[in-house]
Amino acid sequence: MNMCLDCIPCFVRQAADAVRMSVSSEEEQSRLMHSVLAWLGGMDLDQTPPAASQMIHRRLRALLPEGDPYRAAKDRHNSLAASLMPSIRRRIAASFDPLVMAVRYAITGNIIDLGAKNSVGIGEIYAELQSTPMQPVFGDLEDLKKASLKARNILYLADNAGEIFFDRLLIEQLAGARVTLAVRGKPVINDATRFDAHAAGFEDIAEIIDNGSDAPGTILDDCSEDFRRRFDEAELIIAKGQGNYESLSSATRDIFFLFRTKCPVISRHSGFSVGTFVASNLSSGQSLAQPGEVQ
Amino acid sequence: MNMCLDCIPCFVRQAADAVRMSVSSEEEQSRLMHSVLAWLGGMDLDQTPPAASQMIHRRLRALLPEGDPYRAAKDRHNSLAASLMPSIRRRIAASFDPLVMAVRYAITGNIIDLGAKNSVGIGEIYAELQSTPMQPVFGDLEDLKKASLKARNILYLADNAGEIFFDRLLIEQLAGARVTLAVRGKPVINDATRFDAHAAGFEDIAEIIDNGSDAPGTILDDCSEDFRRRFDEAELIIAKGQGNYESLSSATRDIFFLFRTKCPVISRHSGFSVGTFVASNLSSGQSLAQPGEVQ
Repeated sequence: MNMCLDCIPCFVRQAADAVRMSVSSEEEQSRLMHSVLAWLGGMDLDQTPPAASQMIHRRLRALLPEGDPYRAAKDRHNSLAASLMPSIRRRIAASFDPLVMAVRYAITGNIIDLGAKNSVGIGEIYAELQSTPMQPVFGDLEDLKKASLKARNILYLADNAGEIFFDRLLIEQLAGARVTLAVRGKPVINDATRFDAHAAGFEDIAEIIDNGSDAPGTILDDCSEDFRRRFDEAELIIAKGQGNYESLSSATRDIFFLFRTKCPVISRHSGFSVGTFVASNLSSGQSLAQPGEVQ
Repeated sequence: MNMCLDCIPCFVRQAADAVRMSVSSEEEQSRLMHSVLAWLGGMDLDQTPPAASQMIHRRLRALLPEGDPYRAAKDRHNSLAASLMPSIRRRIAASFDPLVMAVRYAITGNIIDLGAKNSVGIGEIYAELQSTPMQPVFGDLEDLKKASLKARNILYLADNAGEIFFDRLLIEQLAGARVTLAVRGKPVINDATRFDAHAAGFEDIAEIIDNGSDAPGTILDDCSEDFRRRFDEAELIIAKGQGNYESLSSATRDIFFLFRTKCPVISRHSGFSVGTFVASNLSSGQSLAQPGEVQ
């Protein structure tokens, strides 16, 4: 899906966040923002949001002091998520349908997204977790369940740090299959990298690969050859989060997208209102204008 | 108060809103946004948010087709507010303290602000109105009440269209005084102009003046001489909304500010958390770090 006018303020906010986290002098912050804004004035709007965001964050990395401005936030989110795991794992195990419940928690984890807004409060996460067990999941949940139980080889495209712990709980429910977890090739926003996959202990339950790209999504042409081969060979692909949906919604193979609709742009494109829990198998060009509630 | 990094995404969003409401071709929208972004790259950040916003909207007026892009939204908000007035007026009249209740409703009306976000839903307004009677008002409400009952000559600085109908209900409670309602001198965002003051029938209960300026706030140096004289002569000034607070928080005379804190920037500057109902007499330099709840 292509970006639109409403994506631009969000990119500018991401840039302001990255600048503030990297530089403390207000004068320098202001100089950097001027540079980013002037550069944005020449940006091509005819691309997907993750492609645009990739360009912006490359530009920011060239301007900002070396280092990952989001590392501290990612560590905080990983720690918080780690502390929540034991009780959520018990809740999933005690539920009527652990796989479906794990899908709900995995989608709940998708609120930990510094691309969509500039902070995620602990209070907000706790409140969301309270309502998770009752959340309806829209799309093709039954199909995902069937496909998950049948597939011997699943490629799971991760989204953000912190959130990746919630993904782990879902992947624990897919124990019948060989699961490969793919993370971003380089740090961008708070997207998960190999570092975060190891923080969540994925080496015990899945193979960890990276996609070779620094986009906050999965832009196949920008991914490594090895990743694209794994993408083609996977029996089932589960793609987590808005960035993966934005970059893969026109892909020519079946993909199950799991995400929370977090902005009006995604809502208009997917047909689901903001805040919806989505688990949907979107073939290219398939319309979601009238989605049915499955569970 | 000066703007900060977090104001920039909000300005970009305002620009995207204005462009979308004025031009339908996506290609032309994209061209205009490029131009606005490139221009923003050279903007002086050392100014108040309303001063920066004034410059941006002047630039937009120079780029966009003639006309007021926000007029249709302002008409919708006026119509909605007009339809709500009879029942709210009855609720105020039946309350224990009609003046204080009218202050609460006037502050509730402050959510109708297209500067702070790009739409205000009817559902949101109804939900807010349900909780209005129970809302605590932070700041100096008792002082405002005393000053309102004593003053013979009050200058009321209006904020937005739609919201101005809620202001009318408060001004009806100040019947002992001669009230002058000041609106913006020219259209900017959804701020109220003379057109909206007449739509709310203010000519029956107050003198209507405009401040001669096209800023979404009250930048005294930019206002007409006549307005500044009225500002100096007024016994009591009530300034509505964030824009008036942002532009007058360093003024050298007492002003009662009535607003809803709608963004983290205002929250940090005023000391009130986001969503608070504020009625406060802020002398220049006075700290609000530990505000007390009054009513």
